[in-house]
Amino acid sequence: MTPAGVTRPVIAVDWGTSSFRAYALGPAGEVRERRETPRGILRVEKGGFPQALSEEIGDWLAARPASLVVMSGMIGSRQGWQEVPYCACPCDLAGLAAGFVRLDWPEAEVWIAPGLSDETETGLPDVMRGEEVQIFGALADLPGGNALVCLPGTHSKWVTVSEGTIVHFATYMTGEVYDLLQAHSILGRLMTDEAVASDDWFGEGVVRGASDGALLHMLFSVRSRVLSGNMPEAGARAYLSGMLIGHEIAAALRAAKDRPDEVALLGAPALARLYEEALGRLGCAQRRIGSDVAASGLFQLAQRLPDGTTMRHEG
Amino acid sequence: MTPAGVTRPVIAVDWGTSSFRAYALGPAGEVRERRETPRGILRVEKGGFPQALSEEIGDWLAARPASLVVMSGMIGSRQGWQEVPYCACPCDLAGLAAGFVRLDWPEAEVWIAPGLSDETETGLPDVMRGEEVQIFGALADLPGGNALVCLPGTHSKWVTVSEGTIVHFATYMTGEVYDLLQAHSILGRLMTDEAVASDDWFGEGVVRGASDGALLHMLFSVRSRVLSGNMPEAGARAYLSGMLIGHEIAAALRAAKDRPDEVALLGAPALARLYEEALGRLGCAQRRIGSDVAASGLFQLAQRLPDGTTMRHEG
Repeated sequence: MTPAGVTRPVIAVDWGTSSFRAYALGPAGEVRERRETPRGILRVEKGGFPQALSEEIGDWLAARPASLVVMSGMIGSRQGWQEVPYCACPCDLAGLAAGFVRLDWPEAEVWIAPGLSDETETGLPDVMRGEEVQIFGALADLPGGNALVCLPGTHSKWVTVSEGTIVHFATYMTGEVYDLLQAHSILGRLMTDEAVASDDWFGEGVVRGASDGALLHMLFSVRSRVLSGNMPEAGARAYLSGMLIGHEIAAALRAAKDRPDEVALLGAPALARLYEEALGRLGCAQRRIGSDVAASGLFQLAQRLPDGTTMRHEG
Repeated sequence: MTPAGVTRPVIAVDWGTSSFRAYALGPAGEVRERRETPRGILRVEKGGFPQALSEEIGDWLAARPASLVVMSGMIGSRQGWQEVPYCACPCDLAGLAAGFVRLDWPEAEVWIAPGLSDETETGLPDVMRGEEVQIFGALADLPGGNALVCLPGTHSKWVTVSEGTIVHFATYMTGEVYDLLQAHSILGRLMTDEAVASDDWFGEGVVRGASDGALLHMLFSVRSRVLSGNMPEAGARAYLSGMLIGHEIAAALRAAKDRPDEVALLGAPALARLYEEALGRLGCAQRRIGSDVAASGLFQLAQRLPDGTTMRHEG
């Protein structure tokens, strides 16, 4: 709890695999300006991150040279600017702030957030980078700081938050498996661009996916139902999507101990809408939370960083 | 039971998605000559099947012009030479033979086997083309004609046979999902060509995959274990393979009613060896059955086709 971050302008950067999002924040953390580009870390060559950051926010830094830059997401991974070790669950705001690493960058004081690691109920390790900051950014939307939060995506995260502390989380590869199957598998070959009655087939997929653990078998029904005339080709894509999402939700709800009465949904509107529908089909209450949560989380974390003036600038 | 097929030479053709296998058979069904090419149906253009067959077995037909050609596999699918409707389970040799369709081909009398369809325990339809013929070809290896047969592959089949009749089957997309994940997913990116201690990691994957229904979550552990130093990169491929195979086997054994004391394994040696090891890990007895089973099954089915001399040759 130092005054350093409070008195200096903060630039929050959510730098993920496939996108770069930056926010110029005001003294209360309000978003004054925002920009988003598809320059995710996969689009930047090894060693090119300092230059890329300079190009993306150089004008903001020129206008406010004393700005503090705080970043989260895959920029702190092995494939990013610098690998920042994971913090372990349980972890609160102060704990995560303590794991930030300061970068050697002449243009401004820059910090990268650590990721978060956990041992799942199966005894396997799990990891995330970026979602934990979004969760902290959404705390104001979680009464008492308690929630089961679902962040749908390429790698969906289900995060248990208790009194403002992230106590547990688990990853589901739902989005990536869906993308692969529809782009490259035999299931994708029979999918059309039409989507007749897709809502109905989505719901049917949700119920099927939630009902049975044998996912590798159920997946084939996308094909066999079309071949046997049991489902129109135009329903195949929605049915597959529903099946994977239903499988994820059912497994996540089974795994949750002391599940709250509702699931808090945090994510892009289009995808959140699908999860909303799926949760509804499975009889689970839900509500959407958060906006600009990465910026809000990074702003709060910036308040907890050590005073920048006491840092050695190495190199 | 007509004498037609018995007295004429039989050429058996197993024409699948990615390979073409032909067998010139002797009077007792023994394989006199065999050939295999990668000319699966995906490599043949629409309308090109008559020409392709002529090129592949034309010399055999020239040597024995009265040969009867019987084919099974995806050649009878919508993407093949001609779509042959599925027979429904339960189905025995005679039932399958009754579903054969004769083709219009001037060079010889040619028949294509139907596929088989079933309603699974979840009420969903399932289908296969080719495996049913292999099962009938392996009947001599099944005491009393009873078995739970596993045919590992791109789309693994688990087939319940009772007194020589196929009563039920289910498909698992294990091989295809494995191929997709290791070729295209974020999991594949960290896989090396080395395979240090791969047997151990395969076994660990089997146990994990069999233990938990949340496959979409478990898959991510391939990545998280490597990232957290819990597994060497060189173990990732075997671990993923074991996880998917373990998931398949556990689900198939759960679904089997009145499961026999052992699983009969029918398939290519390299893949069968993996399933052998996985079944062993899960405490399930198994034995390998069959060789040249497609040829043997097609020969037996040929005996049950209507007398060729009574067929009208249309066109």
